Amino acid sequence: MPSLKHFPWIKTGRKSLPRGMWFMEWFSECEFHGHKVKRILAASKTPFQSATLIETNAFGKCLIIDNETQSSELDEYIYHESLVCPALIIHPNPSRALILGGGEGATAREILNSNTIKKAVMVDIDYAILEFAKKYMKEWHRKAFEDDRLSVLVQDAKNFVEKTSVKFDVIYSDLPSPEKGGPAFELYTNEFYKSVKRILDRNGIFVTQAGPGIPSLFQLHEAMHATLSSVFNTVRSYFAYIPSYDMTWSFLFCTDSAKLDPLLCTGREMDDIIEKRLRTKLKFLDGAAIEGVFRIPKYYRERIKANRKIITRNRPVFFTTYAGLQRM
Amino acid sequence: MPSLKHFPWIKTGRKSLPRGMWFMEWFSECEFHGHKVKRILAASKTPFQSATLIETNAFGKCLIIDNETQSSELDEYIYHESLVCPALIIHPNPSRALILGGGEGATAREILNSNTIKKAVMVDIDYAILEFAKKYMKEWHRKAFEDDRLSVLVQDAKNFVEKTSVKFDVIYSDLPSPEKGGPAFELYTNEFYKSVKRILDRNGIFVTQAGPGIPSLFQLHEAMHATLSSVFNTVRSYFAYIPSYDMTWSFLFCTDSAKLDPLLCTGREMDDIIEKRLRTKLKFLDGAAIEGVFRIPKYYRERIKANRKIITRNRPVFFTTYAGLQRM
Amino acid sequence: MPSLKHFPWIKTGRKSLPRGMWFMEWFSECEFHGHKVKRILAASKTPFQSATLIETNAFGKCLIIDNETQSSELDEYIYHESLVCPALIIHPNPSRALILGGGEGATAREILNSNTIKKAVMVDIDYAILEFAKKYMKEWHRKAFEDDRLSVLVQDAKNFVEKTSVKFDVIYSDLPSPEKGGPAFELYTNEFYKSVKRILDRNGIFVTQAGPGIPSLFQLHEAMHATLSSVFNTVRSYFAYIPSYDMTWSFLFCTDSAKLDPLLCTGREMDDIIEKRLRTKLKFLDGAAIEGVFRIPKYYRERIKANRKIITRNRPVFFTTYAGLQRM
Amino acid sequence: MPSLKHFPWIKTGRKSLPRGMWFMEWFSECEFHGHKVKRILAASKTPFQSATLIETNAFGKCLIIDNETQSSELDEYIYHESLVCPALIIHPNPSRALILGGGEGATAREILNSNTIKKAVMVDIDYAILEFAKKYMKEWHRKAFEDDRLSVLVQDAKNFVEKTSVKFDVIYSDLPSPEKGGPAFELYTNEFYKSVKRILDRNGIFVTQAGPGIPSLFQLHEAMHATLSSVFNTVRSYFAYIPSYDMTWSFLFCTDSAKLDPLLCTGREMDDIIEKRLRTKLKFLDGAAIEGVFRIPKYYRERIKANRKIITRNRPVFFTTYAGLQRM
Repeated sequence: MPSLKHFPWIKTGRKSLPRGMWFMEWFSECEFHGHKVKRILAASKTPFQSATLIETNAFGKCLIIDNETQSSELDEYIYHESLVCPALIIHPNPSRALILGGGEGATAREILNSNTIKKAVMVDIDYAILEFAKKYMKEWHRKAFEDDRLSVLVQDAKNFVEKTSVKFDVIYSDLPSPEKGGPAFELYTNEFYKSVKRILDRNGIFVTQAGPGIPSLFQLHEAMHATLSSVFNTVRSYFAYIPSYDMTWSFLFCTDSAKLDPLLCTGREMDDIIEKRLRTKLKFLDGAAIEGVFRIPKYYRERIKANRKIITRNRPVFFTTYAGLQRM
Repeated sequence: MPSLKHFPWIKTGRKSLPRGMWFMEWFSECEFHGHKVKRILAASKTPFQSATLIETNAFGKCLIIDNETQSSELDEYIYHESLVCPALIIHPNPSRALILGGGEGATAREILNSNTIKKAVMVDIDYAILEFAKKYMKEWHRKAFEDDRLSVLVQDAKNFVEKTSVKFDVIYSDLPSPEKGGPAFELYTNEFYKSVKRILDRNGIFVTQAGPGIPSLFQLHEAMHATLSSVFNTVRSYFAYIPSYDMTWSFLFCTDSAKLDPLLCTGREMDDIIEKRLRTKLKFLDGAAIEGVFRIPKYYRERIKANRKIITRNRPVFFTTYAGLQRM
Repeated sequence: MPSLKHFPWIKTGRKSLPRGMWFMEWFSECEFHGHKVKRILAASKTPFQSATLIETNAFGKCLIIDNETQSSELDEYIYHESLVCPALIIHPNPSRALILGGGEGATAREILNSNTIKKAVMVDIDYAILEFAKKYMKEWHRKAFEDDRLSVLVQDAKNFVEKTSVKFDVIYSDLPSPEKGGPAFELYTNEFYKSVKRILDRNGIFVTQAGPGIPSLFQLHEAMHATLSSVFNTVRSYFAYIPSYDMTWSFLFCTDSAKLDPLLCTGREMDDIIEKRLRTKLKFLDGAAIEGVFRIPKYYRERIKANRKIITRNRPVFFTTYAGLQRM
Repeated sequence: MPSLKHFPWIKTGRKSLPRGMWFMEWFSECEFHGHKVKRILAASKTPFQSATLIETNAFGKCLIIDNETQSSELDEYIYHESLVCPALIIHPNPSRALILGGGEGATAREILNSNTIKKAVMVDIDYAILEFAKKYMKEWHRKAFEDDRLSVLVQDAKNFVEKTSVKFDVIYSDLPSPEKGGPAFELYTNEFYKSVKRILDRNGIFVTQAGPGIPSLFQLHEAMHATLSSVFNTVRSYFAYIPSYDMTWSFLFCTDSAKLDPLLCTGREMDDIIEKRLRTKLKFLDGAAIEGVFRIPKYYRERIKANRKIITRNRPVFFTTYAGLQRM
């Protein structure tokens, strides 16, 4: 007679299977990550992107932009210190800073942490995302938006960079990936980087996030490195592992001043500057760690060396972490 | 030299990987279903349960109670017609109806669809879920809550059934599973079913949802069948496949009147009654379909026959679709 | 100072997260099911398809053909009894049977279970799958391949049906879905069904699996029903819920003999025939259950009624459970 | 009338949903990664562990031990160069090497790549895993097992280390995590590390893999660092990001010789040694990269500094990536 033992799979007493809402992030057609969602805190659709703020068990609050983890409450400091602080420390006297993008306000927060900064300008095209961040993401911007030194312009970054007559000591590109149809792909071209250079002061430093720092998704970094090397004398790659991305992220440090090469700075010198310049202590970086992040594995340096194709307005690239790089 | 071909997995040009938010439902430790979530529409935590209304690509709006799909916009009619209509059609003149639970209002809607109904009473312990349903789930209740024939009591069903002096022609139990620590497990006992019988009129019919109608999770149905058979003369199992559950669901039809045995009703007779009695047409059931749902596979009948253990207040059972049945 | 509490998600002591190998079945871009795999038992790639035999916690051994669950050790009897037995019981004296496809040998096993069968012919194009089944799937075919009444022909079913001069009492189509590029799509056309009818004896019955019996994937059934109705006088849909598919599956029963309409057979008559004709007892079906499976819900009958498009060689259809139906 | 539009989710024409076999790795109850499996190549259950060799789309062949990714064809060089090469380069003349564990043969391969090595001894308790690796994992060991300088002993590492009278220049611990009930947890104690030190030559270096280098799973590294610091004068943490693990992995470099501190070695010196000593070129490391891997982020250094609890035989720890650290 048919009986229960024919279907033996029920085990009783389990209290906590991974039931409920999950956020699924795909890194290719063959790799995905699932993050358990505790709560949906806020959601907004702007003309440029969709933003959702979730609470996860693993990383606290997480900002999801267009189905990609942007930053998390528990580890955003790793991304933002990495983007901001090396240039802020290596520059002899960073007084005027420009942020392209950076809507969460955490890039501004790290910049304003330096007592050398007199003026910071943030140019973000998406008014709605700024309002979203101001309202829901206090853990990110903290008091940054109330700091008199900060001006926020709701404007196309490309337009601003091409038109402004102001010069800056440090410029940060904290823009989304150059997605097809998205607003950012023209900001990843040789032409745009030339415009950026035009508004950089002598001794100025330009830093940009540069996509994933992992072998399977390294093509964007390679292409950006080649392109920036056609504009700046010194271009240095650096990496930081971001837990909520489940991967290493990459950055590029660009300057025309040979003296400002991060590979020539010692940890001790940088620790002294941190001590003098920064108001609150860093959590992820200090002198030794900055030495470390710029000394990337040979594998990646060889890939960078082998790639000489420059991104131009006529031959742009498109990139997402789930579809990789496409060249037009 | 290391090169891209070492990591060959990036294929470009994919527009629509299954990225983003998913609702994961577990049917055991070894089986789960993932439902893509389009939007989160509303969420509420009541003293008794948590309710989330999501929009899915596959089933439209879905009500999730405590991490289990409760019903979906596109197929709730299957569940609610199945629960309500057989008794409503087979009873000679269903005039007074009682609903235990049924917060979404769709059980009431189906009952009020019969022009024989003069009075329907709905007893649900969870005021907040009623408000939630009224506000967000109009596709379910439609005009039911505005119908003068309906009274809604926010009260413990057990208390109501034990105390009331009113009698009913049809009583429906649309309660959640008897979860440990939950409010419902005492409503799945021999003692409670006796109280129900006390307030059923002669010729009265009691119908209850009875858990999954699939082999691996059939233990709740077996136990309920045995228990109800110790209270009622005629107890009939019936099934309906619910797409948004990815499984067949089961119901039990109980009466002391031998004439009202569903296995003796012909489709033709039932079609005549439907024609006369019901205001709007049914979508899932008609006479032939009702004949079909009561003729369940031999496999299940043999399992029912083999199980004689009765659920009592002292020996209750607990059940969830992910942990199966536990007997105290 | 940063500390562990920043990353609070590690809970110790869990022994059994759902780690390891999973088989993922997609029912659309927005719905998938995960089945935990205990072991991979065998794998084979034939010129026609890929076959993998896995052991799951939930369903014992499972045969996966081209990434779709084909049948499982624990519930294959539901599919095979449903496909085979109604015709075997309703036909007055089924003596000669033909099976198109059916490589696992379980369809043959159910046919040979009737003491009326003198000759069964099985035509399967895939020699390798037959060898695979013989070697690894004894729970399916049992002694069927050793039964002298069975002849197995490795041949294209279409070719056999068009050429043979033999006639059959019952013909079963146990073929894979009409996948694009697959070998089976021509066996789902008006032309092919006419060839089948040519080799059916007077009083003959043709039965075919007819795809999913669920709303979102019902298009194949509708199209097959319309097509078969253009060839046979009596065409009846019937359903059975298959646990390892997580869905109801559908079948079509076709005959030109008005007397053999399953809707006219009573359970009692069928039980008598089962008693006399079948050697080992059925587990899923008996007279009452066969009555039940043919009385399908109104919803599906209305969809069938509304669809009058016939599948022809020039206008074939293609179908998979993950991509639905495509019409050329 | 109900119609297809009620269930609108079927989109046709999709060729490549992520169907089929997946390997699911859990990093906590709330985080998992799915890796698409192309083929299962080999599986074996030894008295100590279960080993499966799969082929993935993303990483080529992958060795799975007890449901955890051990190493992949495409990135095993990152792990093995990181484990082996810093000590091999920093030691003045590494002539005798000992490997504890290391069944795949890739640790041996990297050691034998140095022309200074005269004798390498590998002690692995699991004969079956050695045979498995020899047979199926040629991409890992290459010619290592045929090298006359290598002796493989199938023996408990603890026993060997406690009993042998031989001394070594470099000792590598390439053992599995200290899982409860597993064979390795006693090899993560103060007592065992003292035994290791006993058989290290003057100027000897001990290197061990030290678990995940990510915040949420850093407890094992912290505990090992504290424990090794109670045995060795100089203990240095270092990290490498392993793509197939989706995380940074950590190592510990231990010596009593103050001159051999990796933080004092310059990239240039190390490049010279690599040039002279290593037969085939490294892919992941060179002098600059070794400088980089030892300069870990401040965050991790502070956590290491804060943890002073020593692991002893009486107070061992247990650790897995899915359950984190448990202290007895």
